[in-house]
Amino acid sequence: MNIGIVGGGQLARMLALAGYPLGLRFTFLDPAPDACAAPLGTHLQGEYDDEEMLKQLAASSDVVTYEFENVPESAVIYLSEHTTVHPGAEALAVARDRLREKSLFRELGLDTPAFLPVDSLVELQQAVSEIGLPAVLKTRTLGYDGKGQAVLREPGDVATVWEQLGGVPLILEGFVTFDREISVIAVRRASGEVRFYPVAENTHRDGILSVSRCRSADAMQPQAEQYVRSVLESLDYVGVLTLELFQAGDRLLVNEMAPRVHNSGHWTIEGAAVSQFENHLRAILDLPLGETRAVAHAAMVNFIGTMPASAEVVSLVDVHLHDYGKLPRPGRKLGHATVVAADERGLDVSIEALLSLR
Amino acid sequence: MNIGIVGGGQLARMLALAGYPLGLRFTFLDPAPDACAAPLGTHLQGEYDDEEMLKQLAASSDVVTYEFENVPESAVIYLSEHTTVHPGAEALAVARDRLREKSLFRELGLDTPAFLPVDSLVELQQAVSEIGLPAVLKTRTLGYDGKGQAVLREPGDVATVWEQLGGVPLILEGFVTFDREISVIAVRRASGEVRFYPVAENTHRDGILSVSRCRSADAMQPQAEQYVRSVLESLDYVGVLTLELFQAGDRLLVNEMAPRVHNSGHWTIEGAAVSQFENHLRAILDLPLGETRAVAHAAMVNFIGTMPASAEVVSLVDVHLHDYGKLPRPGRKLGHATVVAADERGLDVSIEALLSLR
Repeated sequence: MNIGIVGGGQLARMLALAGYPLGLRFTFLDPAPDACAAPLGTHLQGEYDDEEMLKQLAASSDVVTYEFENVPESAVIYLSEHTTVHPGAEALAVARDRLREKSLFRELGLDTPAFLPVDSLVELQQAVSEIGLPAVLKTRTLGYDGKGQAVLREPGDVATVWEQLGGVPLILEGFVTFDREISVIAVRRASGEVRFYPVAENTHRDGILSVSRCRSADAMQPQAEQYVRSVLESLDYVGVLTLELFQAGDRLLVNEMAPRVHNSGHWTIEGAAVSQFENHLRAILDLPLGETRAVAHAAMVNFIGTMPASAEVVSLVDVHLHDYGKLPRPGRKLGHATVVAADERGLDVSIEALLSLR
Repeated sequence: MNIGIVGGGQLARMLALAGYPLGLRFTFLDPAPDACAAPLGTHLQGEYDDEEMLKQLAASSDVVTYEFENVPESAVIYLSEHTTVHPGAEALAVARDRLREKSLFRELGLDTPAFLPVDSLVELQQAVSEIGLPAVLKTRTLGYDGKGQAVLREPGDVATVWEQLGGVPLILEGFVTFDREISVIAVRRASGEVRFYPVAENTHRDGILSVSRCRSADAMQPQAEQYVRSVLESLDYVGVLTLELFQAGDRLLVNEMAPRVHNSGHWTIEGAAVSQFENHLRAILDLPLGETRAVAHAAMVNFIGTMPASAEVVSLVDVHLHDYGKLPRPGRKLGHATVVAADERGLDVSIEALLSLR
């Protein structure tokens, strides 16, 4: 079977690494000449809305999936008309737009931060008075890793953030003082089978995910599963879906969804019985899903901007290196390490050792 | 770093799958247009002694290794003169020739079946009278999976097997009535660090490996390690080395060596902390070696000639599919499944389920 992936970055690369053992072949559409997934399959080098490239991708793929949510809608529609595409166009459209996304969560009865759409300075002023401060103004589309958002702490910030972000559709969200950030990754195949990974507890640095730690038997697991299940079912979703959540006391608020494999699930490569990458492929091929349990105490540490020396990483006990083969650039995700340890103490030691290498 | 591999079959494929997470790139030299490793790197399609291809392979590789021992000597010499090659030419020359191999084992004091070189019918008759019957006549080079060998059970078989195999350098070996076949896989890096995997217990069908079962804490482990260590050190060996052994009572006899990753070590992909494939790459790059312990009860079942349906394999608990993406052909190794189970009972159940699928 041939799998097409829109995007040829590290998520596509890790999907391919998980897919070859299933006997799959891969084609990547990516405009970058040095797309890091390219050595692992056929690379169609072109823009995501290049119809000739989309035609080739559809023709060479039994199923098309994607590694990011900002795929142009026209591309998703074209591909859906010419081959099988998972997840579907609706899931992508919802995930691409913070307003549609949060509106869906609210319709489904999921707890979320307060939010209001903002398309003008007047609307921003009204939204601030309704939601209160502090609050976060975000672009409705194209935001990631903390980009496309700004925090308003006092009334004087309104003009500044409007100048910074105004002119595109926006959303104002109430600022949540949370105890921790967690994410839940679930997978659903066409025939309806659903599985959930243990939640991950995430810490960020400069707006970018830094460490994800698997929390088997977390007290929030049942509620997180109920949340993600309701989203999966409402969208008749096929593939891996991630919800990012804030925990404040015993409240669990949904921040956003990612209709794809997710950085906070990279610990599953060595840390779960079957990884998020393999399960995404199984799901879109409607194969039986694999076990999602953690095989030990597991965590993931991102390498951002620079890579430590391979010899230093692989010399650490219980640590697995994942170098994406990308050129270094400030703020760029270049790789990660998975830690799989027999106990929490060993996990802590290895995480600390990895953090000190960065 | 760029790794060149002579051969583009499943061993090269699994080396590449283990190597991308280390940030490596791969070039394969293989005459087959459909070499199954080809989608995972650059494929130089040519014969193993094609000097232009060898030149390209050397030029594009920081280190060259190989996935089989029958690489033409001229190719190894050429590559060694133009880049770094591991394991070295001597190890390859020894492994290619059953007489040199067994002579080395004997020099090192390792127990082996009785053996004598045979280059004529007269020498065969003399060897039979010295070693006794039953015995096994084998070609000194190019044998694998039971090919290039014949059993002599009675004096009348001498003429028949001579007709079958005579004309090339041969070796007659005493027939060993063994209790079981095991193999030990070790890895050594240039700076001298050595690690050993737990021995695997192997069962064959029609001369081809069928099931390998990891035996942590096997009574034969210390002696197997001593054997393989002496071979590694005598050859100043770099990379993964496998010894195939017969156990008869408490005697451990060396049958042969493979200067490479080995089918009986495929269980290490999911079953060991670090796989034989990753450790081979670490060794040839002189990186610190990874832990070789089994993470659970592990085994490997080969798929030969035909592949079961993916859905049937992945629906089994504790089972990981490895489809090499090869066209079916009788006697051809098309894939394997690894079983990683919490206990021996679970391992047995999954092995039986896999055997019933074939």
